[in-house]
Amino acid sequence: MAKPLILVSNDDGITSKGIRVLIETMQQLGDVVVVAPNSPQSGMGHAITIGDTLRLEKSNLFSNVDAYECSGTPADCVKIAKHYVLKNHQPDLVVSGINHGSNTSISVLYSGTMSAAIEAALEGLPAIGFSLCDYDSEADFSHVIPYIIKIAQQTLAHGLEKGIALNVNFPPKQNEPIKGIKICKQADAKWQEEFDERKDPYGRRYFWMAGNFVNFDTGTDNDEWAIANNYVAVVPCQYDLTSHQAMETISKRWEL
Amino acid sequence: MAKPLILVSNDDGITSKGIRVLIETMQQLGDVVVVAPNSPQSGMGHAITIGDTLRLEKSNLFSNVDAYECSGTPADCVKIAKHYVLKNHQPDLVVSGINHGSNTSISVLYSGTMSAAIEAALEGLPAIGFSLCDYDSEADFSHVIPYIIKIAQQTLAHGLEKGIALNVNFPPKQNEPIKGIKICKQADAKWQEEFDERKDPYGRRYFWMAGNFVNFDTGTDNDEWAIANNYVAVVPCQYDLTSHQAMETISKRWEL
Repeated sequence: MAKPLILVSNDDGITSKGIRVLIETMQQLGDVVVVAPNSPQSGMGHAITIGDTLRLEKSNLFSNVDAYECSGTPADCVKIAKHYVLKNHQPDLVVSGINHGSNTSISVLYSGTMSAAIEAALEGLPAIGFSLCDYDSEADFSHVIPYIIKIAQQTLAHGLEKGIALNVNFPPKQNEPIKGIKICKQADAKWQEEFDERKDPYGRRYFWMAGNFVNFDTGTDNDEWAIANNYVAVVPCQYDLTSHQAMETISKRWEL
Repeated sequence: MAKPLILVSNDDGITSKGIRVLIETMQQLGDVVVVAPNSPQSGMGHAITIGDTLRLEKSNLFSNVDAYECSGTPADCVKIAKHYVLKNHQPDLVVSGINHGSNTSISVLYSGTMSAAIEAALEGLPAIGFSLCDYDSEADFSHVIPYIIKIAQQTLAHGLEKGIALNVNFPPKQNEPIKGIKICKQADAKWQEEFDERKDPYGRRYFWMAGNFVNFDTGTDNDEWAIANNYVAVVPCQYDLTSHQAMETISKRWEL
């Protein structure tokens, strides 16, 4: 059987430790091509480059890997990978990450890591975003590698339904080993912002936005619970945002 | 009854025609506060500003309206409006737009207009993104104003369920009047990119990304159908991306 072709991207940029670990892990499973941002793109959500140009340069950062750095967002990277770099070679799997930091719960909306995976799903490709709930740029990823391999192998074996990408979060390295994998839902939580107002050297005000994560979810079937209890959290995410329940409510009750 | 407080934002920037029309329309319904980007932010998706500062300046563009321009993304604008500008005055409604261009179907993911509305929904506020399917910066918005008023009034009267924001798209001005409003789902469609490769004056390559919209949806219950048939398309969007169907499939079939 031919080795699978695996496209790797991320949002922390091509020089991050997380993407290096993911590339090395994927090399155990197949042939790897990398198209990743040339600068950190955290918090870019599903941004794309409109009205501006893109650069794409060959990278020699990794041995035995065809790698490119792109000036765009994670979603741009997947688009240019699919329609230019791999125009004649459809990848069998697209993986994004490993993100340095959590993308559980509502963070999936802000996540560049997941936007790369969702963009790939839009292209009909099986796709997974991997994130470690540890923001350290030198974080220890060793405990998650067997789980990445298992989840990637199962994705290659079973595929994913149309319109779905997986959001996989790992607990940080602890004394106890990870307890297992939970297939779960996005926790009901949000970021509660505070704005720290300061003056610049010219006397003009500016702000730092700082967020506190607030979890409203008391259930045990969600990604926040899984991470807090040392499980791997796997949330299948859909890009069809339609709420059929709200369609019904509005159709019945509103006067339009 | 006290007049409702309405927050207005957008993604085309505070100087666009679309936001001016939306502000004037909302002034018929309540007191208006504006916090909008100081530059165009199309295609920013749900990007937020992390690791950089934000500016917020008073704007005198509109008469009788408390308005601010912000250096951040549409989602940033809603955050700073909610937690700083309107810290002590919860808005009754948040509206975003009117976008110069379509945000139907999958464009909702890339849309800064809708990210402002979804960010407001996250804050528990009733929120609507309005878009006109006409990219002209001097587009004619006159035919949509009665529909904006009707939809905003119904949203104020009934509220929206937790976790929902409305994505409202209007057909461009035509000879025939708009036929009515359709509550519908996000069409199954995508952007098919092409990358136009060029050389800069220094001989280095760069790319323009160009997209062709491809509609796979043959149904009559979706936003693309509504717009093509001169109806207003109202899609209730949820920010919980969990696919419960895929959770079930994966739990049953995968070996994890």
